[in-house]
Amino acid sequence: MSKQEISASVIRRLPRYHRFLGALCKKGIVRISSKELSEQMGLTASQIRQDLNCFGGFGQQGYGYNVCALYDEIGRILDTAAHHRAILIGLGNFGRAIASHVRFPECGCELIGLFDANPFVAGKDLRGMPVHHIDTLAGFCHQEHPEIAILCVPDSAVQQLAEKLCTLGVKAFWNFTHCDLQLADPSVLVENVHLADSLLMLTFGLHRDDQSDSAT
Amino acid sequence: MSKQEISASVIRRLPRYHRFLGALCKKGIVRISSKELSEQMGLTASQIRQDLNCFGGFGQQGYGYNVCALYDEIGRILDTAAHHRAILIGLGNFGRAIASHVRFPECGCELIGLFDANPFVAGKDLRGMPVHHIDTLAGFCHQEHPEIAILCVPDSAVQQLAEKLCTLGVKAFWNFTHCDLQLADPSVLVENVHLADSLLMLTFGLHRDDQSDSAT
Repeated sequence: MSKQEISASVIRRLPRYHRFLGALCKKGIVRISSKELSEQMGLTASQIRQDLNCFGGFGQQGYGYNVCALYDEIGRILDTAAHHRAILIGLGNFGRAIASHVRFPECGCELIGLFDANPFVAGKDLRGMPVHHIDTLAGFCHQEHPEIAILCVPDSAVQQLAEKLCTLGVKAFWNFTHCDLQLADPSVLVENVHLADSLLMLTFGLHRDDQSDSAT
Repeated sequence: MSKQEISASVIRRLPRYHRFLGALCKKGIVRISSKELSEQMGLTASQIRQDLNCFGGFGQQGYGYNVCALYDEIGRILDTAAHHRAILIGLGNFGRAIASHVRFPECGCELIGLFDANPFVAGKDLRGMPVHHIDTLAGFCHQEHPEIAILCVPDSAVQQLAEKLCTLGVKAFWNFTHCDLQLADPSVLVENVHLADSLLMLTFGLHRDDQSDSAT
């Protein structure tokens, strides 16, 4: 099956499989059953078999999955060996943290430029990389052709900036503002990251547990 | 339908509905059809009708949804008006950014304590809140009873720390390390946040687009 045909929800789960299989591979584990993998990952064994069946026959009855072969195959589908050129814009607390915290090479990306509108921030270095002033963005894009822009700017600035970056050839946005970015060109990729969504899952869960307790 | 009966995947989408409906409410928009909402949110209209049907009849044929009533109802389900007490541990770049960037009150949470193992960080202030030394954690928990712990510590420290926090009464973990946290007590809530997962979706998407281009 070509990877175009794998459903979006399976694709969304691939990074998680990749992470768990990578950890098993590092531990020297050669094979694993869907049952063992399900216990570690908190998914059902049948979900795992169904997901992994989408892209080939690495599981064998009575043997399980070949851990490293499956890890490599998922890495190939996700394209983790790529070197997509990324720029990060907005070097406030959050932008600096993203620049330092995220393991870009493991995600098939290379961080090639940092930008900020504040002249006191631009000109300085972050982890050995110079921070450029935002006014130099167009020239940089014409020369370096970044494909991905990581947006850590104030909410009010994000839409206009993203539209400008589209005209400069950026094809994918990793958006950390509190706004959902919407762009006219449907071929442009957008990942709106809302950290608070997962915190709300904890709030919801605590509330539900409180209600269960008081019902018993 | 009680909220216990709403499926986990619908619950995961609720923060997104809440965000979009909140923005519409602020703009003074009184009602919206599933079709209009679907265009704004990038979901299908039938998905939206199906999701929102799970918790009551706010949509009416030919009228659409009452925006503010639906926003309030989703907020009630998520419990956004709660004041769950949260502590954040690990005030490196990333922890400081989380403490500053996340809108805790909108997520039903209150940040009541900051902790770090570094004696040069502990004792200082962050946004008017004192940073405590990690050695004072047990005493603090006995006194203040935080329910949520936000973990921004090094990967190698996270498992042991979380286990200790469980014994101190913490019921929910928001984990920002690169490790998937696994705890023995199934009633403890864990949200493992892997930022890189969404970056990998961009890498995957760029790769797929490249392949489509070269196939045409």
